[in-house]
Amino acid sequence: MPEHQSTQARWGADYVQAISPYVGGKPIAEVARQFGLEPGRIVKLASNENPLGMSPRAKEAMLAALSDSTRYPDNDGYALKQALATRLGVPAAWITLGHGSSDLLEMAARALLTDADAGMYARYSFIVYTQAVQGVGAQHQVVPDRAFAHDLPAMLAAITPLTKLIFVANPNNPTGTFLSADELHDFLRKVPPHIAVVLDEAYVEYTLPELRYDSMAWVREFPNLIVSRTFSKAYGLAGLRIGYGVAQPALTDVLNRVRSAFNTSTLGQAAALAALDDHDFIEQAYAVNRAGQAQLAEAFDALGLSYIPSQGNFVLVKVGADDGAGARVNLALLRRGVIARPVDNYGLPQWLRISVGTEAENAKCIAALRAHFAES
Amino acid sequence: MPEHQSTQARWGADYVQAISPYVGGKPIAEVARQFGLEPGRIVKLASNENPLGMSPRAKEAMLAALSDSTRYPDNDGYALKQALATRLGVPAAWITLGHGSSDLLEMAARALLTDADAGMYARYSFIVYTQAVQGVGAQHQVVPDRAFAHDLPAMLAAITPLTKLIFVANPNNPTGTFLSADELHDFLRKVPPHIAVVLDEAYVEYTLPELRYDSMAWVREFPNLIVSRTFSKAYGLAGLRIGYGVAQPALTDVLNRVRSAFNTSTLGQAAALAALDDHDFIEQAYAVNRAGQAQLAEAFDALGLSYIPSQGNFVLVKVGADDGAGARVNLALLRRGVIARPVDNYGLPQWLRISVGTEAENAKCIAALRAHFAES
Repeated sequence: MPEHQSTQARWGADYVQAISPYVGGKPIAEVARQFGLEPGRIVKLASNENPLGMSPRAKEAMLAALSDSTRYPDNDGYALKQALATRLGVPAAWITLGHGSSDLLEMAARALLTDADAGMYARYSFIVYTQAVQGVGAQHQVVPDRAFAHDLPAMLAAITPLTKLIFVANPNNPTGTFLSADELHDFLRKVPPHIAVVLDEAYVEYTLPELRYDSMAWVREFPNLIVSRTFSKAYGLAGLRIGYGVAQPALTDVLNRVRSAFNTSTLGQAAALAALDDHDFIEQAYAVNRAGQAQLAEAFDALGLSYIPSQGNFVLVKVGADDGAGARVNLALLRRGVIARPVDNYGLPQWLRISVGTEAENAKCIAALRAHFAES
Repeated sequence: MPEHQSTQARWGADYVQAISPYVGGKPIAEVARQFGLEPGRIVKLASNENPLGMSPRAKEAMLAALSDSTRYPDNDGYALKQALATRLGVPAAWITLGHGSSDLLEMAARALLTDADAGMYARYSFIVYTQAVQGVGAQHQVVPDRAFAHDLPAMLAAITPLTKLIFVANPNNPTGTFLSADELHDFLRKVPPHIAVVLDEAYVEYTLPELRYDSMAWVREFPNLIVSRTFSKAYGLAGLRIGYGVAQPALTDVLNRVRSAFNTSTLGQAAALAALDDHDFIEQAYAVNRAGQAQLAEAFDALGLSYIPSQGNFVLVKVGADDGAGARVNLALLRRGVIARPVDNYGLPQWLRISVGTEAENAKCIAALRAHFAES
């Protein structure tokens, strides 16, 4: 064997080796293979997808654009950015399209953090924040929660000269907790202006109307703010990978410098553009989610399970008092054809995150939980 | 105005500010808007897309998977990786799916380079190499060409202790030049084993059969080799953003650590899987390209324009002796409804890169060139 064939055991910097690849909700096909189940009888409540599917307008737009997929996408996303600009009341030049909003989170880290900086986020918040900070070799500033929610005063207090980027999610995933407009605005006013804040609004369409606020006004007010949103959740376009960020020009400029060429697809742009105006669909998604939240809450109460009231389309529920509970109940649900989301990688091994499905899907999940707890 | 509203003029590290965002071929819709032309009469020969479109099997697979786009994609790309493994004769665990093969190029840089390292590539090679190296703040080792092709001995000689990653494209874009199997294998044997090599085979399906080599055997031989390929070119799926890389497990492991979650879409995976087995379609694409190359060569000869013989689906043609020639002729073609690709950002301001189209598309391009040179 020539010398150069000696296999190198590890490649890349230590910080790269320390990245834990993302573990998503199990796909239906994978669960079907592993547990010998019929795919059609499996209920997936693992990834906060829209159980209603997507807007018929999005599907029509995809059909119309199918053959265009031979060409490269519009790298500038002209039509979608124009439509978003009109909808949001900001200039199109303030918008950056992303391959899902997670792309925006990663772009923010790549644009704003080096291995000499630190990125901050709350314990029990979206794991992509951890990965984005780790991916550039920056330091992590993980701020403990306050009753599962972001502790904004603690986050302000944790700022150091190294801090360059802070992630805040509202509503928060995986806990479903919500920060009031006043708390959040006060926080934004107090963050030093050289530190960028990503306000991740992936679940914004599911919040109660009386809790909502105008984050676009905040983008106009704060040159250090990036608001990120997605078409993956309420809009039901998760498989197309499309989201966006809104920020003032100086921040948008650096996001676009680190943005990968053609980071959104032809069909993603077309579907998002069409979905954007289907207000009825979003209203229906909202209503189904509220009804499902009530259905699940009633069942959890009856089973004596505690849970966190959620402003998202999912609920974090405590399925046992020992650190094996999440994994154990998850497996029990999988065997019964229900895919929920274990959150031990979030430091929540006694909990499961359950997406809100249709009434029938929720009922199947509830029945599986009942059957498991009746047996155990 | 409160203090924190003082706008920060520049965000991010100097190396981020120094990234030049990718400039792709102009989309047809954009040229139609800018020049007041009918989109249907515009010919796009700017992005090395397949003028035949995509395999009908790919379209069928997309139709069948349309509604699945509500769900997140399979983050592991199980079915597509299995099919690729069978086709390529490597384990599925050696394959990394990418959002186009450019995603693989960027993953390699993020996984293998820090701001203390250097990445190497040839002058006149794919501009994403430059951007990938710049994106992590690494040093650039740009090795001058030998008659527009990679100068492999010079690349070996340019290796320093900082070098951690070398990009080699075969065929090369934008020049169309080709390295023989012997040259390339000799190079791979001489690269020190701690330096990774990306062999970018985006255009491999267009090379003459007698020039082809088994790069999968090289992946088995060299633990430091990543071969990247795409479905954007011959397979005609550019808008879906899907490609892949093949490497031994230790390298594949770090690529997956920096890979973004859900980096390929549901429809991209489905279409690629279906397209993979349509050998007739690829043969037809090959034949149309060879015929088109001959058609363009004849016209360039008649016009007295020099060009580089190409193993890709494009030709680099010299359109003038002054450094304004590329931009000038490009504009003249745009006005006549032909989108070619200026390559001044590649350091080739006297040249244009013209993708090979259908016979009719090539004829329209040739007519536009003739008309321009007749006038000027």
